[in-house]
Amino acid sequence: MAKDKKLVEAITSMDVDFAQWYTDVVKKAELIDYSSVKGCMVIKPAGYAIWENIQKELDGRFKEVGVENVYMPMFIPESLLEKEKDHVEGFAPEVAWVTYGGLEPLAERLCVRPTSETLFCDFYARDIQSYRDLPKVYNQWCSVVRWEKTTRPFLRSREFLWQEGHTAHATAEDAQARTEQMLNLYADFCEEVLAMPVIRGQKTDKEKFAGAEATYTIEALMHDGKALQSGTSHNFGDGFAKAFEIQYSDKENKLQYVHQTSWGMSTRLIGGIIMVHGDDNGLVLPPRIAPVQVMIVPIQQSKEGVLDKAAEIKSVLSGYRVKVDDTDKSPGWKFAESEMRGIPVRVEIGPKDIEAGQAILVRRDTHEKTAVSLDEIGQKVGELLDTIQRDMYERALAHREAHTYEATDFDTFTKTIEEKPGFVKAMWCGCQECEDKIKELTGATSRCMPFKQEKLSDTCICCGKPATKMVYWGRAY
Amino acid sequence: MAKDKKLVEAITSMDVDFAQWYTDVVKKAELIDYSSVKGCMVIKPAGYAIWENIQKELDGRFKEVGVENVYMPMFIPESLLEKEKDHVEGFAPEVAWVTYGGLEPLAERLCVRPTSETLFCDFYARDIQSYRDLPKVYNQWCSVVRWEKTTRPFLRSREFLWQEGHTAHATAEDAQARTEQMLNLYADFCEEVLAMPVIRGQKTDKEKFAGAEATYTIEALMHDGKALQSGTSHNFGDGFAKAFEIQYSDKENKLQYVHQTSWGMSTRLIGGIIMVHGDDNGLVLPPRIAPVQVMIVPIQQSKEGVLDKAAEIKSVLSGYRVKVDDTDKSPGWKFAESEMRGIPVRVEIGPKDIEAGQAILVRRDTHEKTAVSLDEIGQKVGELLDTIQRDMYERALAHREAHTYEATDFDTFTKTIEEKPGFVKAMWCGCQECEDKIKELTGATSRCMPFKQEKLSDTCICCGKPATKMVYWGRAY
Repeated sequence: MAKDKKLVEAITSMDVDFAQWYTDVVKKAELIDYSSVKGCMVIKPAGYAIWENIQKELDGRFKEVGVENVYMPMFIPESLLEKEKDHVEGFAPEVAWVTYGGLEPLAERLCVRPTSETLFCDFYARDIQSYRDLPKVYNQWCSVVRWEKTTRPFLRSREFLWQEGHTAHATAEDAQARTEQMLNLYADFCEEVLAMPVIRGQKTDKEKFAGAEATYTIEALMHDGKALQSGTSHNFGDGFAKAFEIQYSDKENKLQYVHQTSWGMSTRLIGGIIMVHGDDNGLVLPPRIAPVQVMIVPIQQSKEGVLDKAAEIKSVLSGYRVKVDDTDKSPGWKFAESEMRGIPVRVEIGPKDIEAGQAILVRRDTHEKTAVSLDEIGQKVGELLDTIQRDMYERALAHREAHTYEATDFDTFTKTIEEKPGFVKAMWCGCQECEDKIKELTGATSRCMPFKQEKLSDTCICCGKPATKMVYWGRAY
Repeated sequence: MAKDKKLVEAITSMDVDFAQWYTDVVKKAELIDYSSVKGCMVIKPAGYAIWENIQKELDGRFKEVGVENVYMPMFIPESLLEKEKDHVEGFAPEVAWVTYGGLEPLAERLCVRPTSETLFCDFYARDIQSYRDLPKVYNQWCSVVRWEKTTRPFLRSREFLWQEGHTAHATAEDAQARTEQMLNLYADFCEEVLAMPVIRGQKTDKEKFAGAEATYTIEALMHDGKALQSGTSHNFGDGFAKAFEIQYSDKENKLQYVHQTSWGMSTRLIGGIIMVHGDDNGLVLPPRIAPVQVMIVPIQQSKEGVLDKAAEIKSVLSGYRVKVDDTDKSPGWKFAESEMRGIPVRVEIGPKDIEAGQAILVRRDTHEKTAVSLDEIGQKVGELLDTIQRDMYERALAHREAHTYEATDFDTFTKTIEEKPGFVKAMWCGCQECEDKIKELTGATSRCMPFKQEKLSDTCICCGKPATKMVYWGRAY
C-alpha cells in the first residue's frame, strides 16, 4: 500500500493550492501532457476519451434539432477577416498568421481560424439565394487557434477543440429562437450529462462576442468559487449579413438580409468537469461522461477462479463501459489509480467475496462501500451509476447555492467578492461605467444577466441610479 | 418531368470528359463547394455525412484492435520538423508557415502539420520509459495541410481531413505486424464497407513515405482506369526513434530504441467512392456508407392518405437511414435528385400503390424496379440493400479485372498503358533507374508490389535483367 499513498500524495490538496491541485490532476489522471509547442497541449487517451463522449452526446442532441455538420477551411484570408469591423477588432490581435506556403511568400496573409463566422458568411453569401434555402443550421467540429499569452490546460490554450454552429434564418424571430434553443440545449447537456448546474442568461454589451447583437451564456461555479463560462450562443441580427451581402429573395421575390447566429462549446468543459467534481484523490467523473464507468479490481488475482469471476462480472456488466484491471500492480495501487482517473464505480472481487457470493462496490464520489450479491450485480451497478450521477449534480448545485450571495450596496458587494469566493447577485443600472468600475475595484466581472431575474433592490449597487437588471458577478476563469 | 432532365443533363457524361464529370458530380450532389481560400474546399452536409460514416466505421474497427485516440498540436516548430532528415526533405517544400502570433513575429517559425510523425515522436520521447509503456497505439482524427499547386476536390487539396495512427513497439517484429494489420484493416474496410476492391502490396523505395523503411499501400482502380492510392501504412523501423531519442528500458533494464509505424486514410476515399461507383446520373453510394439509404418519394402526395402511408413506411424502415421527400417538387425532380445524391434505394408510393397494397422499390445502381407488398417492405428493403452492396463490390471487381493487363516486354507494356487504361502487371528488376525510365516514357508509376506475387516472366520488362518482383503499374491520381 506504500505506492498507493505515494500516488495520492503526489497531488496537492485543493485547499492548499487550487491551481496546483488542478495542474496535478490533469497530469496525474493522464488527461494531457505539455508539448514542445508553447501554449499547446497533447490530449492523451484518458482526456480525449472524455471529449469523444462529449462529442457523441452533444452531436446526437444537435442532430435531433436539425443541425447538419460541415467542414470549412482552417484558414481565413486577411481581407475576409476584416469584413466585419467589430469582429476583426476583437480577433485580429490574437490570431496566428500564415505568411509562407512552401517556399513562396503568400500574396495575402491567412490567419488560422480563431472562429469561423467570416468563412460561414462567405459561404452563405454564395449558397443562399431563396427563402427555400433557409434556415441553414450548420455546425463544425474542429480546432481553433487564439494566440493567448498565458495558458492553462483545457481552460485557455493557444489551440483548442470545439464545435461551432453557424445558422442563417429568414427572420429576426427565427434567429432569436435558435439562439435560445441552442443555449438551452447546452445548459441541459451540462446539467444532465456533466452533472454541472449552470446559470442561463445574457451577457452585458461589454462582455458580448465581437460582432454580436446579443450573447447568451451558461455560467458554472467551480469548486474554488470562480466562475467558468461554459458555452455561449450569439445572435448576430443582420450585421454580418450586411457586411457579407447575404441576401435571399422572399416569397414576394424581394431581397432580404438573413439573420444569423453562432454557438460553441469546447474542451474547456473538461476543465469544468475537473473543477466542479474533483477532490483530493483526483478526478471524479460523472457516470454519463466517464470513458470507463466501472473498474473491476481482482483481489489476490493469482488465486484460482478470481480472474475468471472478474471476467464473468465484466460480461454481466457489458451494457456499461467496464474494464478489469488485471495488471501486476497491487490492489491498493489499482484502487488509487482508479480513483485518480475518476472512475465512478470500483468493483472489488476476491476469494472471500466469491465464497460469500458477493462483490464489493465502491463509489468514487463518496467512497461508500457496499457488498452486493453477485446475482444482482448488474442491476445494482446500474442503480448505483444513476445514483452517483444524480448525487453529483445535487452536490454541485448545493455547492453553488451555498456560494451564491446577494449584495444591495457596494461595500457589502466588495467585501463579499473579497472574502467569499462565489457568485454575487446584485442590481445594476445597465451602464458600462459601473461595470468597468466594479471590475477595476473588485476583480469581478459581470457573468450574466440571468433569465430568471429577481429584484433585490431598486438601485445600482455602484452608482445608486435606478437598476435595470439583476446581474451575477464573480471572478472567472 | 422537364426539370428532371435538366438536372441530369447538367452533368457531363463520364465518357465525354471524366474529369469534368467528376467535378460536376461533387458539385451537383452537393458534396463540396469551392471556398475563398485557394485550394481549400467547403465540405457540405451531404459530403461531410459520408465522412462521418467513414469515421464511425473505421474508428470502431480501430478500437477493436486496441487503438486509442489522442490529439496533438496542429503546429510543428521548424526545429522539430528538421530532426529526421528524409522526412523534412519530403515535407518542407509543401508546408504552410506561421510566422506571426498576434502582432508579434515568432522567434521560431511553426508549420501547420502536413503529418504528425515529429509531434508523436517528440511526445513518445517524453512519455515512454519502460517496456511496460509499450506498445503505444495512438491515432488522431484531424486536418492536415500540404501546399499543393494543383488541387481537386477530395483528391488533392491544400487542407484535408484524415486520421493518422502512430505506434511505438518494443520489437521490429511487433512494428511489422502492426503495419500489416492496419493495412489489412484498411483493405477490409474498403472492400466490405465502400464496396471498393483494392490491391494490397508494398511500395517501391522510390514511392515510399519520407522517412519510412517500408510503405504498404492499398490501390484501387477508378472507372477511368486510373489508380487511386487509398490508404498507406508505414514501418519506420527505429529511424525516427534514433533521431528523437525514443528509448525504453527492457526487462533486463537495458536501453532499447522503439520501433514505430504510422498509417493514414483521408477524405480522398470520398473521391474514390465517386470514381469507382458513380455513373452519368451522378453519385452512387454503397448502402453501408450512404448517409441516406432509402428515400421515400410520395406520388400525388396531396391525395389523402399518401403522406400518411409514406410516414408509415418510414417508421417500418426505422432500422435504416431513411427520409421522406415531401417537398413541393415534382416526383420526377425528386427521382433525379435522389439519383444524383446516390441514395441506394428509392421507394415510390402513390394512391394506386396504396390501393394495390404495394410500393415500388427502385435500385440506384441498376435502376431496376420491383413492386413489393407493403407487408413485406421491411424485409425486402433490407435484402435489397444487402444485394446492392454485394453487387456494387462485384461490379467494381469485375471492372478492375477487365482492366488489369499483363506485359512481358516493353513494347506491349507501353502500348497497353497508352491504349488500355487500367493496371498493367509486369516484372521488374528492382532498380530505380528502370522505374524512373518507365515513368518518363509511359507516365505510369509503380503502384505496388502486391503481396500476391505472380511470375509472369523471368526478366525485367525495362532492362531485361533478372526480375525480382511483379509490380502493378498504372497512371494514378
